[in-house]
Amino acid sequence: MEIYFDNSATTKPYKEVIEETAKAMEEYFGNPSSLHKIGIKAEKKITEAREFIAKSINASKEEIYFTSGGSEGNNLIVKGLAKPGHHIITTSFEHHSVLMPYEELEKNGVRVTYLKLDKQGKISLEELENAISKDTVLVTIMHVNNEMGAIQDIEKIGKIIKEKSSRARFHVDAVQSYCKLDIDVKKMNIDMLTASGHKIHGPKGVGFTFIKKGIVLNPLINGGSQESGVRGGTHNVPGIIGLHKAAELSLESSKSSFEYVKSIKEYMINRLGEIDNIRINSPFRDDFTPYILNVSFIGVKAEVLLHLLEESNIYVATGSACTSRTSAAQGSYVIKALGLNNKEVESAIRFSFSKFNTKEEVDKVIEILKSSLTFLRRVKR
Amino acid sequence: MEIYFDNSATTKPYKEVIEETAKAMEEYFGNPSSLHKIGIKAEKKITEAREFIAKSINASKEEIYFTSGGSEGNNLIVKGLAKPGHHIITTSFEHHSVLMPYEELEKNGVRVTYLKLDKQGKISLEELENAISKDTVLVTIMHVNNEMGAIQDIEKIGKIIKEKSSRARFHVDAVQSYCKLDIDVKKMNIDMLTASGHKIHGPKGVGFTFIKKGIVLNPLINGGSQESGVRGGTHNVPGIIGLHKAAELSLESSKSSFEYVKSIKEYMINRLGEIDNIRINSPFRDDFTPYILNVSFIGVKAEVLLHLLEESNIYVATGSACTSRTSAAQGSYVIKALGLNNKEVESAIRFSFSKFNTKEEVDKVIEILKSSLTFLRRVKR
Repeated sequence: MEIYFDNSATTKPYKEVIEETAKAMEEYFGNPSSLHKIGIKAEKKITEAREFIAKSINASKEEIYFTSGGSEGNNLIVKGLAKPGHHIITTSFEHHSVLMPYEELEKNGVRVTYLKLDKQGKISLEELENAISKDTVLVTIMHVNNEMGAIQDIEKIGKIIKEKSSRARFHVDAVQSYCKLDIDVKKMNIDMLTASGHKIHGPKGVGFTFIKKGIVLNPLINGGSQESGVRGGTHNVPGIIGLHKAAELSLESSKSSFEYVKSIKEYMINRLGEIDNIRINSPFRDDFTPYILNVSFIGVKAEVLLHLLEESNIYVATGSACTSRTSAAQGSYVIKALGLNNKEVESAIRFSFSKFNTKEEVDKVIEILKSSLTFLRRVKR
Repeated sequence: MEIYFDNSATTKPYKEVIEETAKAMEEYFGNPSSLHKIGIKAEKKITEAREFIAKSINASKEEIYFTSGGSEGNNLIVKGLAKPGHHIITTSFEHHSVLMPYEELEKNGVRVTYLKLDKQGKISLEELENAISKDTVLVTIMHVNNEMGAIQDIEKIGKIIKEKSSRARFHVDAVQSYCKLDIDVKKMNIDMLTASGHKIHGPKGVGFTFIKKGIVLNPLINGGSQESGVRGGTHNVPGIIGLHKAAELSLESSKSSFEYVKSIKEYMINRLGEIDNIRINSPFRDDFTPYILNVSFIGVKAEVLLHLLEESNIYVATGSACTSRTSAAQGSYVIKALGLNNKEVESAIRFSFSKFNTKEEVDKVIEILKSSLTFLRRVKR
C-alpha cells in the first residue's frame, strides 16, 4: 500500500483528466492561432475552458489567461505591475514565486512591506490597513498557506484594501485554495488571482491567471497575439482541456470533498493525541484548511522522519516541494515566520490530503509514526 | 481525407508520445522537487530526458533547461541578458517572441541592430561582422525561418561572432530546425538555443533551452529551486517525458525524413509549374528547408485562398500562426522583410510538411489549387 499524503506538492491526475488530455493530443492537436478549421476546433475547446473557469470564480471569460502554472502567473502579476517608486504589500510566508520577484523589485527601487504573521499564520488586518499608502499599487496575499494551511480572510482583506485605496490592486495566490474554498472575485474584491492545474488533480504545466478587466500588465512572455497579447506562446491545448476537466470534477464535489477531508484531518489529529511531544501547527479550526496538517515532532529531524516514513511507502513533506532542498537543511521559512522555536521548526512535517485518502491510511501512518518516533527518540538519547 | 500542410504551426503528436504522456500522468505524477521516492521517480525521468536532449545537440545535461516552449525560451534569453547600454544584433524576420522583447529592451536603453535580409531570406555575413562592436552582448539568429524556410549558415555565423568578439553570445532560435537539421552547439559556437516540443510531434506546453555553462541569465520565472534556479515552477513531468519521446522518434528517422520530405517539396514545386502567375518564395535549394514551401499566388488574397482550400479539408497558413490575425490582414512581416512587392506579399501561402505527408496529398492540393485559382482569378476580373 502506498500512502500519498503530499497532495499540496502535487496531486495525482483524475483518470478522466488523463483520458481527456490524451484524447485532446489526438483530436485537438491544431494550433488555436491557425486560421483554418483544425485550429478553430482547438480554439473552441480553449474558449469552453475559459468560460467554465471564469464562471467558477465569478469572473468573465475575457479576464482569464492561461499560463504554464502558478509560478508563471505570480511572476506575471508581480513583475508586470510595479515600477520604481511604487509600494507593494505582501507577507513573509508567500510562495517563492511571489517573494523572489519581490526581492528583484526591491533592488530596482520598489518598496515592499512584508506583513508579519501571528503564530496561527494570520496577518493583522490593522497592520495591513496602516501599511496601505497612496503609493501602494499591489497587495499580494496567499489565500491558503501551502505549508501550514492558514486561511486568510480574503473577503475582509479585499474590503480593507478597497476602502483605503482606489489604486492598490489585490492579488491572491489561490494555488492551494482553488476548487477547495469558494472564490468569488467580485465579492472578495480580488483584482488578480493565480491557480495551477496540478494541485487539483489536473495536468502539470498549465494554470490560469485572472486579471480584472482594465488592468494592464507588462507581459512576462512577449510573443504572438495569444491571450490578447498578455501571454505569448502556442496554447497548451491538451493541458488547458485537462485543466478544464479537473476543475469540473473538483468543483462538482467541492463541498463533499471538503467535509470528507475535514473528517480525515480531525481523525488524524485525534490519533496524533496518542503521540507525545508534538505540536499541531495547523489545528482543526475553520481558519485552517482541512487539506493540510502540519505537525512538529519535537526532538527529531523532519527529513529523517520523512525518510523513515518513506520506507513504509508513506509520502509526506517537510515543507514546500519547491524549496524542499533548502527547507530540509535549514527548516522551512514559512514555519519560521510563525515564530516557532527551533525544535518546532526543524521537526515539522506536512501531511497534505486529498479526497482519495482514507482513515485506514491514517491508521497506518500513525502506526508507522509511533514506531519511527520510538526508534528515533531512543537513538537520540 | 484531411490534408494537413501546416506542420510549421504545430504537428500532430506521435501515437507513442500520446501514450507516454498519458502513462507519465499516471505513473510519474510526483513532484520532482519532493524528497521522497514518488518525487525522485519523476525526477529520474526528467534527468533521462535532459541527458538525451543534451546529447542530441552535443551539450551537457547541466546546460539544458526545460521551459513551457519556444516563446518562453526566447523571452528568457533575450530579457535575461541585455542591460541598458548593451548592444544586440538580430534580424528583422525573427519570431515575435524575439522581436517583441527586443522592442521592450530598446525602450530601456539597449541598442538593437536589425540585420537586413536578401530576397532569399539570408543575412549578409559582412553586415553581421561590421555590426559587432565591443558593446555587443547578444546575437539572435533564427536557424530556419518559420515562414519561408531560409536556412542561415549557423556555423559560419558562429565563427564570425567568436572571431570578432569574446563577449557577444550567440543565441539560435531552433524551433523550426531541431530534429530536422543537425545541430552541434560546440561546432557551431552556439551559446544559447531554444526549441519547442509541439513542432516535432511532441506535446504542447513544453520546450527546452540550452544555456552554455558559465552564462548567467536573470530568470524570467523566479520561484523554487527547480532547473538550478533558472526557471521556477513545478516541472511539467509528463510534458518533458513526451518531449523526450518525440525527440527520440524524430531523431532516429531524421535523415530519412529529411530526404522524404525533400521529395515531397520537389514534387510539389514541379506540379506547381502547371499553375500560372505564381512565385516560389522558398525554392528547392540546399539553403531552404524542405519542410516549408511558401508560394505567392499573384492576384489573389492569401486568406481567401486559405479558406477555399479549407473547404476541401486542406489546411495551410498565410504565415506564422502566432501572428495569423495580423498577417492575414496586413501581409506577413517576414515576407515583407524579403523585399517582395505587395502583390507577392498579400498572396503568400505557406505549405509546411511532415514525414507523414504524401505525394497523393500533393496531387489533391494541386487539383484544388487549380480549381480555386480559376474561380478566384475569374471573379476578380
